[in-house]
Amino acid sequence: MQANFKVEKNNMPKQKPDEKSLGFGQYFTDHMFVMDYTEGKGWHDPRIVPYGDIALDPATMVLHYGQAIFEGLKAYKSDEGKILLFRPEKNMERVNISNERLCIPPIDVDLTVEAIKAIVEMDSDWVPSAEDTSLYIRPFIISTDPFLGVRPSFTYKFMIILSPVGAYYPEGINPVKIYVENNYVRAVKGGVGYAKTPGNYAASLKAQMEAQAKGYTQVLWLDGLEKRYIEEVGTMNVFFKIDGEVITPTLEDGSILGGITRESTIQLLRHWGVKVTERRISIEEIYQAHEDQKLEEAFGTGTAAVISPIGELNWNEKIIKINDGKTGELSKKIYETITGIQYGKVKDEFGWIQEV
Amino acid sequence: MQANFKVEKNNMPKQKPDEKSLGFGQYFTDHMFVMDYTEGKGWHDPRIVPYGDIALDPATMVLHYGQAIFEGLKAYKSDEGKILLFRPEKNMERVNISNERLCIPPIDVDLTVEAIKAIVEMDSDWVPSAEDTSLYIRPFIISTDPFLGVRPSFTYKFMIILSPVGAYYPEGINPVKIYVENNYVRAVKGGVGYAKTPGNYAASLKAQMEAQAKGYTQVLWLDGLEKRYIEEVGTMNVFFKIDGEVITPTLEDGSILGGITRESTIQLLRHWGVKVTERRISIEEIYQAHEDQKLEEAFGTGTAAVISPIGELNWNEKIIKINDGKTGELSKKIYETITGIQYGKVKDEFGWIQEV
Repeated sequence: MQANFKVEKNNMPKQKPDEKSLGFGQYFTDHMFVMDYTEGKGWHDPRIVPYGDIALDPATMVLHYGQAIFEGLKAYKSDEGKILLFRPEKNMERVNISNERLCIPPIDVDLTVEAIKAIVEMDSDWVPSAEDTSLYIRPFIISTDPFLGVRPSFTYKFMIILSPVGAYYPEGINPVKIYVENNYVRAVKGGVGYAKTPGNYAASLKAQMEAQAKGYTQVLWLDGLEKRYIEEVGTMNVFFKIDGEVITPTLEDGSILGGITRESTIQLLRHWGVKVTERRISIEEIYQAHEDQKLEEAFGTGTAAVISPIGELNWNEKIIKINDGKTGELSKKIYETITGIQYGKVKDEFGWIQEV
Repeated sequence: MQANFKVEKNNMPKQKPDEKSLGFGQYFTDHMFVMDYTEGKGWHDPRIVPYGDIALDPATMVLHYGQAIFEGLKAYKSDEGKILLFRPEKNMERVNISNERLCIPPIDVDLTVEAIKAIVEMDSDWVPSAEDTSLYIRPFIISTDPFLGVRPSFTYKFMIILSPVGAYYPEGINPVKIYVENNYVRAVKGGVGYAKTPGNYAASLKAQMEAQAKGYTQVLWLDGLEKRYIEEVGTMNVFFKIDGEVITPTLEDGSILGGITRESTIQLLRHWGVKVTERRISIEEIYQAHEDQKLEEAFGTGTAAVISPIGELNWNEKIIKINDGKTGELSKKIYETITGIQYGKVKDEFGWIQEV
């Protein structure tokens, strides 16, 4: 596959890390994919080169004005040794949604999906085999004009780097405690909340640190206008099962990232005949449902964890336990089905999987 | 002064650009200031080195999660050849306000003001002499851990780069046309609007481009909650003179950057006995004042332009002209006084100037 792209081989391959202590995002493979954009010329020179430092002028725009976007997905090794990708075209389509908001020129979805396959194939011996491990794929775009002034850049770099990552749940899937954030705001209508852009993550750090200091894993973000409607949990989308119905916040206001695991979860639930509703849902409604003993499950969805069950919420020091702090049946079923499809153990009825 | 810092001299100095066509932020001097932060060790190794590319691992956190801040100020050459700085300690104090919000460890204000003086002295022959030109100073901090995961970095780089810049008003100070933004939002209470961080600027690009396509220089930002209260104009603070009183939006909600030119303008006006009020002010109030013929002047304040008079506003296609589209008396007086102090032509009664 990588025959389509110019390849410069790394003649000094690194020693691979122990698959039992990979952690997340700390090790990188031997190669990376690079493509440049120049105003008037478009995206050009797609290529695979040895993984290594990039030289940036200190005035490079991304360092000052943050015009950048990124994506995250994984490659999984099946028991038969096949390398599988989960809906990579969705990530590349989302690149263009992010690009449009950040004034970055669009990329070619087909070409960049091919690029993902080519770079993963190139470093296929880096896809780990130990249970629940995978190869994390990070496509990203940075603005590269060496210029100090607020305007869109005329040049960009699209890159893909790869990182072997460990099991998210080495001790089995486990619910987390979540702090409902009343002070800080992640995004608001009219802002960049629906784009996967660095500034959204920078803005979230302080709330995350304060929640962790209080003993919570992450925050549940409320809307920026009324601090009432639920948006996301940490960097994940969020779902609640109330009285048999699954509810997740609507993407309509543009303040929430449209997750690919979110979309897959909705599709899966509907396939199973579970009622799923995308709508605004307030934190009061969650607490009321709990009081009425109708709040059955709550969980986050994202690429890293797939499903992250929520066992406890703290909203203004009112603490509620969800499903006795245990992982719900439906949460577990979604987790097992999606990870099963990803690793080629469960039949893919949806056309989600692409083989490298 | 730079004796305090280790200096590696650039033995290949560049040719200096023509002072008549400097523009803004395109040329950089022969040296830069660098200082590193390592968790457990603090800020260390302050040094002056030749200006040049920095080598960054493609996984460097700033490129993915945007944990970064910056500042902007200028060095001015007086008729006697002295090099003057305008309130540099205010910029370095603001670094720490931004750092606190972005979970970046604080810097030493005194040390970094000394660093500014040292690097400007080192490249003092780059401070241009032509009228209204200056040397733009860009201190900035980037997070440098090569790590993919949302948390504060353990390592950072603080840098100062310098760029000789041309006159902002080569043809004399001139009012601009401003589009009142009803769709996009710059910042909201609980967000990072008061911090000088890349994400705020990335988020502003799209509105700016759309306003320019409609023939406007910049946008006037309204609050994210009600789209009613005035926040900033482009990347500047904004002032209105109504019936003899000068009004500027309050910083209380944390969605507005506390500008140093803003603060200096308020101080100057009060010194002159002009009534200045910092409060919420709605766009309706501005339009009503215009209808009552009481809207006398409007202007933006910022480091680049100092004062940018507003000659026209377009809010929902209702267009009003301010002061017949001409620069107001007070706007001109503030501009002349502040620039006069900056270039050493007007007596500095406020202790704003520091000589390099």
